[in-house]
Amino acid sequence: MAKNIQRFSYVVCLLVSILVNIFFFRKMYYEKDKLSWSQRAAEEAEAVAAISCSGNGRVFVDGIVVDGKPICECYSCYGGNDCSLLLATCPADVEGGDPLFLEPFWMQNAASSAVVVAGWHRMSYFFPNQSYISKELEKNIRKIHAIAKNAITDGRYIVFGVGSTQLLNAAVHALSMESSSSSPFTTKVVANKIPYYSPYKFQTEFFQTLHYEFEGDSSMLKNKSDFGGNVIEFVTSPNNPDGNLRNSVLKGPNVKTIYDRAYYWPHYTAIPAPADEDLMIFSISKLTGHAGSRVGWAIVKDVNVYKRMMDFIDVAEMGTSKDGQLRALTLLKVVAQGDDKQLFNFAHQILSHRWEKLSRIFSLSKRFSLQRIPTQYCTFLDRIREPSPAYAWVKCKRKEDKNCTEIFRVAKIIGRPGSKFFAENRYVRLSLLKGQHDFEMLISQMKKLVSQEGGVGAQAISSF
Amino acid sequence: MAKNIQRFSYVVCLLVSILVNIFFFRKMYYEKDKLSWSQRAAEEAEAVAAISCSGNGRVFVDGIVVDGKPICECYSCYGGNDCSLLLATCPADVEGGDPLFLEPFWMQNAASSAVVVAGWHRMSYFFPNQSYISKELEKNIRKIHAIAKNAITDGRYIVFGVGSTQLLNAAVHALSMESSSSSPFTTKVVANKIPYYSPYKFQTEFFQTLHYEFEGDSSMLKNKSDFGGNVIEFVTSPNNPDGNLRNSVLKGPNVKTIYDRAYYWPHYTAIPAPADEDLMIFSISKLTGHAGSRVGWAIVKDVNVYKRMMDFIDVAEMGTSKDGQLRALTLLKVVAQGDDKQLFNFAHQILSHRWEKLSRIFSLSKRFSLQRIPTQYCTFLDRIREPSPAYAWVKCKRKEDKNCTEIFRVAKIIGRPGSKFFAENRYVRLSLLKGQHDFEMLISQMKKLVSQEGGVGAQAISSF
Repeated sequence: MAKNIQRFSYVVCLLVSILVNIFFFRKMYYEKDKLSWSQRAAEEAEAVAAISCSGNGRVFVDGIVVDGKPICECYSCYGGNDCSLLLATCPADVEGGDPLFLEPFWMQNAASSAVVVAGWHRMSYFFPNQSYISKELEKNIRKIHAIAKNAITDGRYIVFGVGSTQLLNAAVHALSMESSSSSPFTTKVVANKIPYYSPYKFQTEFFQTLHYEFEGDSSMLKNKSDFGGNVIEFVTSPNNPDGNLRNSVLKGPNVKTIYDRAYYWPHYTAIPAPADEDLMIFSISKLTGHAGSRVGWAIVKDVNVYKRMMDFIDVAEMGTSKDGQLRALTLLKVVAQGDDKQLFNFAHQILSHRWEKLSRIFSLSKRFSLQRIPTQYCTFLDRIREPSPAYAWVKCKRKEDKNCTEIFRVAKIIGRPGSKFFAENRYVRLSLLKGQHDFEMLISQMKKLVSQEGGVGAQAISSF
Repeated sequence: MAKNIQRFSYVVCLLVSILVNIFFFRKMYYEKDKLSWSQRAAEEAEAVAAISCSGNGRVFVDGIVVDGKPICECYSCYGGNDCSLLLATCPADVEGGDPLFLEPFWMQNAASSAVVVAGWHRMSYFFPNQSYISKELEKNIRKIHAIAKNAITDGRYIVFGVGSTQLLNAAVHALSMESSSSSPFTTKVVANKIPYYSPYKFQTEFFQTLHYEFEGDSSMLKNKSDFGGNVIEFVTSPNNPDGNLRNSVLKGPNVKTIYDRAYYWPHYTAIPAPADEDLMIFSISKLTGHAGSRVGWAIVKDVNVYKRMMDFIDVAEMGTSKDGQLRALTLLKVVAQGDDKQLFNFAHQILSHRWEKLSRIFSLSKRFSLQRIPTQYCTFLDRIREPSPAYAWVKCKRKEDKNCTEIFRVAKIIGRPGSKFFAENRYVRLSLLKGQHDFEMLISQMKKLVSQEGGVGAQAISSF
């Protein structure tokens, strides 16, 4: 009897085990079915992402290959094969506007933000209906603006360009052509006021056609009541470098305005109301941080301006990269998912924290000052909010400190000189957008610099 | 004894089964470990690729979404949700240069050509060393030219642009600036000779700066011995539309030449020798068929011209899409793999087959003729080869057939009119680059058209 029970239990165990085997076998077979052609690329991408660079760098699938594997690309001030060497006497480089502070967000959202591109994906010049524009991306752009409450897109046209950079010139071209039919004068292009972002000048001069020319800042025309020609004014709002919201200075029937809205996101500024200008330019670069994808868009009211801008993109390059558009679409879907505030909150928290930290140091200095940005009601956060600008616009206050960039350079902080914004060199711009290690180096060097002033400030800083 | 043996065999079976269980469990656990963040995107891409469109269309991951899924995009002349409806009275559309004949190659090489892009991939404006250019892509471009034996790249500079389209204007800009320092005249831009690709004219006029202007075809200047200014000549070789190899017409110290080498691949032409001109423009579009990625490159001898072209790309848009560059890199690696002739042989076989088929039909017509392309020795194939051009350049020979495009349109074939190449409308260009279904429709309609002539030809065609 006992032996029978024992035998019975063996049989049951064996049957269960065999069933489990069948289950595993089916599941494995099924899993294998599920991924076929994408498996290799997925494994490669994950293997590359898993390479360690000591936390001081990262590897990309298209990085320089040594011994069959792409190598570590170290953060600034780190070196060696695995980025483990900290380079002595290395400065904090906060010159450029690389929006790498958003990189951790995408590492945290790795699964939803990954893109798999098939070899035969979008080989044609066109999306359906001979369009250069992904309708799904356009739809998602409108959705994101509605979420951020930063622009009205209903009934507006959308043009894609290679970053907002290209759209600046496409807009100048389109508006100057509009003007040229109505006026015998060459259209004058101006930038709102000093300090302003230098490409308005350099790009307009570089591509100067017979129809337009760069004139300087808006004050050059404001007092010239006798100028009867057409004018295009660039307004950056929030402004680069100082983060303040701006409005056009010039008004009148012969003035057209290009609103560069690259920084008009809850990351960087209060959103008092959705922007509703005739021509506004945005980009993925300062929204999701993907500057490298070169995806920008213009929101345009007038159908003729829209058509001229589309012509520009067509003649310049027959549309923008479908790969960049697919990437942007995937990223915007992540931004819109969940409670749809995840990215905005992440970005705002980092930048307001950085601003607070930097402000505390500057508050202890008598030698240097930061720009003022008024606290304002933000419709996105639904409350009054403190500043969180993309850049610090620093003034060297001592009379003899005429070259502020040089003073910072000696203190091992690389900023962008005021002259690059057509302001005095008494100013320097420091980027708050870069990766965490760059920001921490900036803070560390700033503390040393302000400490050198001595007095109460130095004591306070040492207790930070 | 027998019972003991039986019990023993139960135990052994159970142990084996448990071991198999452990094996499966470990394998599954290991497999699960292997793919983590890329799994979702890979599954999505494969699921989308598996949607059936009755063989008459395809679905893309960024297609219009209906009921949560991207919908079928049907080939021309097909409709319905699953592209199963053949639209009656639909013409063969062979107007454009979409290189979709290469799509099947990438479907056949699905695993090696797939790309997985991580959410944090290349967010910066720059590759290492503040470069806009992927060094790995540059390296692979040089490698492919060496394989195809179609261009010398050693010691040459490489500039990337948004398709070859953008590089045409970047080159005109760079060369006109070179000239403007040495001459008081505006640089004249000309195109080699009629028939020529229309963007040379339209783009040069559209972006006309103070430094250059479009003059027409080279003959406009050839006989003007008194013109002392600088000249830029566009030479397309092989030529679009007629596929013939060309050389510059104008010579002299004040002449610069831009060689548009988009079609100088073994797909389309014999390669008599590697091209070695001062400034040559190529693109991924006509090499791998990925027109939508907008990746082109110029090979430049002179360092100053190279620098000016790089400046152009910088000022125009701060570099080209990193996503497009990654895609191009992956595709070029596939081209270079195996016996490294796979893509070239595939492309050449399709196009020479298409040309042969079309030529047979035209040989039976007295009303229409095709361009002549001499057979030539090809260093890539290492033999004399028959033509396999990208386009048929058709002449309507009857005196009264002044509008060839219209005659073809009535016969349900949409081509590009001769006037778009500044030739007589007695000519029409038919694309041989499109998908197989488009080509088959062309053949079917061509047979009908030539049959209408009656006589021996019609009889011969009916026996095809």
